[in-house]
Amino acid sequence: MKKIAILGSTGSIGTQTLDVVDMHPEHFQVEALAAGGNTDLLIEQARRYQPKKISVGSKELADKIAPHVPAGTKVYYGSEGLIEVAAGTDADTVVTAVVGSVGLESTLAAIESGKQIGLANKETLVTAGHIVMERAVAKGVSILPVDSEHSAIFQCLNGENRSSVAGITLTASGGSFRHLTREQLQQVTVEDALKHPNWSMGSKITIDSATMVNKGLEVIEAHWLFGLDYEQIDVLLHPESIIHSYVEFEDTSIIAQLGTPDMRVPIQYALTYPDRMPSPAKRLSLAQVGQLHFREMDMDRFPCLRMAYECGKMGGTATTAFNAANEVAVARFLRKEISFLKIEDIIASVLEAHQNVDNPDLEQIAACDQDSRKLASVL
Amino acid sequence: MKKIAILGSTGSIGTQTLDVVDMHPEHFQVEALAAGGNTDLLIEQARRYQPKKISVGSKELADKIAPHVPAGTKVYYGSEGLIEVAAGTDADTVVTAVVGSVGLESTLAAIESGKQIGLANKETLVTAGHIVMERAVAKGVSILPVDSEHSAIFQCLNGENRSSVAGITLTASGGSFRHLTREQLQQVTVEDALKHPNWSMGSKITIDSATMVNKGLEVIEAHWLFGLDYEQIDVLLHPESIIHSYVEFEDTSIIAQLGTPDMRVPIQYALTYPDRMPSPAKRLSLAQVGQLHFREMDMDRFPCLRMAYECGKMGGTATTAFNAANEVAVARFLRKEISFLKIEDIIASVLEAHQNVDNPDLEQIAACDQDSRKLASVL
Repeated sequence: MKKIAILGSTGSIGTQTLDVVDMHPEHFQVEALAAGGNTDLLIEQARRYQPKKISVGSKELADKIAPHVPAGTKVYYGSEGLIEVAAGTDADTVVTAVVGSVGLESTLAAIESGKQIGLANKETLVTAGHIVMERAVAKGVSILPVDSEHSAIFQCLNGENRSSVAGITLTASGGSFRHLTREQLQQVTVEDALKHPNWSMGSKITIDSATMVNKGLEVIEAHWLFGLDYEQIDVLLHPESIIHSYVEFEDTSIIAQLGTPDMRVPIQYALTYPDRMPSPAKRLSLAQVGQLHFREMDMDRFPCLRMAYECGKMGGTATTAFNAANEVAVARFLRKEISFLKIEDIIASVLEAHQNVDNPDLEQIAACDQDSRKLASVL
Repeated sequence: MKKIAILGSTGSIGTQTLDVVDMHPEHFQVEALAAGGNTDLLIEQARRYQPKKISVGSKELADKIAPHVPAGTKVYYGSEGLIEVAAGTDADTVVTAVVGSVGLESTLAAIESGKQIGLANKETLVTAGHIVMERAVAKGVSILPVDSEHSAIFQCLNGENRSSVAGITLTASGGSFRHLTREQLQQVTVEDALKHPNWSMGSKITIDSATMVNKGLEVIEAHWLFGLDYEQIDVLLHPESIIHSYVEFEDTSIIAQLGTPDMRVPIQYALTYPDRMPSPAKRLSLAQVGQLHFREMDMDRFPCLRMAYECGKMGGTATTAFNAANEVAVARFLRKEISFLKIEDIIASVLEAHQNVDNPDLEQIAACDQDSRKLASVL
C-alpha cells in the first residue's frame, strides 16, 4: 500500500492521478489533497478518498467546505495549508501538480520531510533546479517525473549506466499552430490556440505548446533531472507524439519510449516505479498508426525555444525571468489583451532587461519572479 | 580485459566481432578462433590476434595452415577442434557464429564449461532451445543475443521486471521482395533475391529474409531467449529497419531500440553487457530519416512465417524439420535448381511428412534434421 498526497488534486494532473488510484485501490491510499478554488470537486474527492488532511486557497474557502467533508478530514488553507498537505502526513509520495511558485515552496517542504516527489510542477526545477536537486540528493529523495517526455527519458534510462548516455531527445508535436508560418501566426486567436492536436491539457500549457515555451521549460527540467549539459539535450518535431522521447547511448543505440497520448501512464509510472501495473490507457498499434514523421526543430520558427536554451545555459535567475515573463504573457493572451506573437516579444523584452543573479537563493528567485511579472504585465 | 573466442571468425558476424575488438583493443583479448574453409583469412587473423587455439574444417586444411600461424597458436580441426575452441580456453565469452548444426554441439560445450554465450547461431535455439536454456540456467550462463532484433529486445528489458512484459514485437523489413505480389514472386531470380534493402548479410540469410523464414526463426529464438509464449510475440512490417524491435509492458508503455543498421552494435553489446562502449556505427538522425512506416504482417503473403509459428507452438522436433527443410531448399534455390516459391512448398511438404517427437534429445534432433534434409533435397 503506497500512501500519496496530491498538491493540485482538482486540476488535470490531479484528477488523472486519482484515476490511477481508482484503477488500483488496493495499492494506493490518499493521505492528503490540496486544491485552489474548485471546492465542489475537492469536497467530492474528500468524501470519496477520506484523506486525513485537505487544503484550499483561502480561510474563507476553508470555512465554506469544512461542514461538508468527512469528520476525519482536517481542513487547512493558504500556503501553510499546502505545506501541511505536502509534508505533514505519512505519505510516501507527493504528487506536486500545483501551478506557479507555490509549487516550489511545497515541493521543498515535501523533500525536507523525506517524501518521494512525483513532479508535475514546472517552476520547481525551472526556477530552482540547483536548490531542489541538491536537497533531494541530501535527503535521499527521488524526483520522479510525471510529464510524458521526462517519464519517457526516465524509463529509457532504466538499468543503464548514466555515464554511457550520449544525449537525449525530447519530441515536440509542434502544437496547434505547427502548420502555420510566422506570418500566419499574426492572426491566430485564443480559440485557435486551444485546439491541441494530441494531448488534452489545460489552456496555459496548450498555449505553451504552441509557442514551444513548454518544450523549452522541459529542456531546462531535463537538464536538472538527468544531470545533462544543454548540448546533450535535443528537441525533435514529431507531430504524432507517439515516440514520447528517447535516449541515445555512446554505442549509437537509441532507446525510446512510445505509447498513445495518455497522462495516466507516466503518472502511474511515477507512483509504481520501479514496477509497472496495468493501465486503462489505449494500447498502441504502430500498424494502425502506419507512419511516424520527424522534422528538425526550427529555432527561427520557434524563438521561445531558442530563448529557453539561452536562459538555461546562462543559469542563475534567467530561467525564472523566462518563466515569469511567459506566464504573464500567456495570461494576457488568454484575456485577449495581446496577440499570439506578442508573447515572445514580451519574453524577449523581459530577458533583455533582466540582470542575472548567479546561484540565487529562494528570496532572490522570488524577487526576480516578481520583477519579471511586473515588467511583463506592462509591456 | 574480456577474453573471447569466436566460432566462425571468417564469416560476416565473425569479422564484425573482430572489428569490435579492433575498436577496443584494450578491452578484449582473442583467445581462440574457428573457421571453416577460408584459410587465408584465418591465417591473417591468427597473425593479428595471436590466439592460443584455432580450428579449421578438416585435417587437410589444418596441415595446410599450420606452418603459417604464430608459434603460440595451436591448430585443431573438425568438430572436435570446434569444441576445443568453444570450451578449451580461458575465454569468458564465446561468440557462436558458425552456421548449421555444428553450432549446437559447440555452443553446448561452451555452456558446459561455464562460458557466457554471444549467440549468433540460429540452430542452437531453434532446434534445441529446451536443452540449451535448461543447461544455461543450470550452469548460470547468460545467453546474450547477437542479432539485432533480439539484442533490441534484450536492451529494452534492461532494468525491467520480466513479469510486467505484455509482449514483444520483432520488426521485419519485408526483405528484397517486399513490394512484389505472390504472382510476381514466381519469376524472381537468385540475383534479385540477394539485393537486401537495409542490411549487408550473407546470401542464405538474405533469402531467409525475403521468405520471412528468418523472422520465423527469430520468433522461435525469442520464445526461448525471453521465456515468452508465442501469443506474446508479434511481427510487424517496418521497411526502414530503424526500430529494431520493441517490448510492450502491462501499463501500455512501449520501450523500443532504434539505430542505423549495423551489426557491430548488437555484437558489441553482447560483449560489453551490461555496459556500453563507443561504436563506429553511424549515428541515427530521425530528422534525416524523416518518416517511419509500419504495416500489419500478412501471413498469406508470407506463409513461411505462419509455418514457423505453427512449428514453434507444436514444439518437439517440428522446428528442427522446419529449419532443415528451409536450409536445403534455400541451397537448392541458390544453385538455381528450384524457383523462389518452391522454397515454401518444400518446407510445407517436409512438415506434412514430419512425425513430431516431443522433448527430443540431441540424437533425436539430429535424426530429424537428417531425415528432413534428405526429403527436402528430392522434393
